[in-house]
Amino acid sequence: MLIREATADDWPRIWPFWHRIVAAGETYAWDPGTSEEEARVLWMNPAKRVYVVEDDSGAVVASAYLTPNYGGPAAGIANAGFMVDPGQGGRGHGRALAEHLLAEARNAGFRGMVFNAVVETNPAVTLWTSLGFTILGTVPEALHIMYRAI
Amino acid sequence: MLIREATADDWPRIWPFWHRIVAAGETYAWDPGTSEEEARVLWMNPAKRVYVVEDDSGAVVASAYLTPNYGGPAAGIANAGFMVDPGQGGRGHGRALAEHLLAEARNAGFRGMVFNAVVETNPAVTLWTSLGFTILGTVPEALHIMYRAI
Repeated sequence: MLIREATADDWPRIWPFWHRIVAAGETYAWDPGTSEEEARVLWMNPAKRVYVVEDDSGAVVASAYLTPNYGGPAAGIANAGFMVDPGQGGRGHGRALAEHLLAEARNAGFRGMVFNAVVETNPAVTLWTSLGFTILGTVPEALHIMYRAI
Repeated sequence: MLIREATADDWPRIWPFWHRIVAAGETYAWDPGTSEEEARVLWMNPAKRVYVVEDDSGAVVASAYLTPNYGGPAAGIANAGFMVDPGQGGRGHGRALAEHLLAEARNAGFRGMVFNAVVETNPAVTLWTSLGFTILGTVPEALHIMYRAI
């Protein structure tokens, strides 16, 4: 397994699982009908650091981004988003990628990370909790806001 | 007092108090050094509905925006932001504007409103609470996330 920063060339290998995850509507509060171009602008945004995981065969099996969540007096809080190919789940890629991004965030000087909108049915809630995230609050019938110091 | 939708012509009358509020860093998690052009793009965004309050002398004394906070499975939750001229505080403009936006959000079909990042020192926290918002959670040393059903 290799975790590295993404390049523009990785997008066509991210999009198939990105689309499958968002279309399912169980994990991200984004429009399930998001087009490939809208998704590319959202995910491969130059204001974000984007990462991919390659498995041992060289396939891109997961991606994540890291970005400031706020500005001004709260600029020390990061935000991140994660997508693991549902066909490649259960192999530890999500956990390894999350640990990598927490280390990258720490190195960049952030002191905490917030997930703004974790759909309650997202199976990764268990992973986030095991990594030390807590649920700060829950928007009724919708979303958890999760936090971890880093 | 008149509450109406903003036009592009209103921006020069919003910017002085917008700048004063953001530069103080006590209420919004935005860069205190935000330029006028960045602020205009952020606030007068065509994806948002923007409102202003005129007092009886015709002066613009407050502004607010209303926008969806999420997409997909959580598209029913709105977000809003409020700025009241600090030199015109305590006259009920903030409360009137908030009540107006809650009604507008309800009419637009939203079922709840979330404030993503209310700096803990923001004096409006008391106003939001009196209007039925609750603190869903608090990002340590930084921000409240507040919610109200509508």
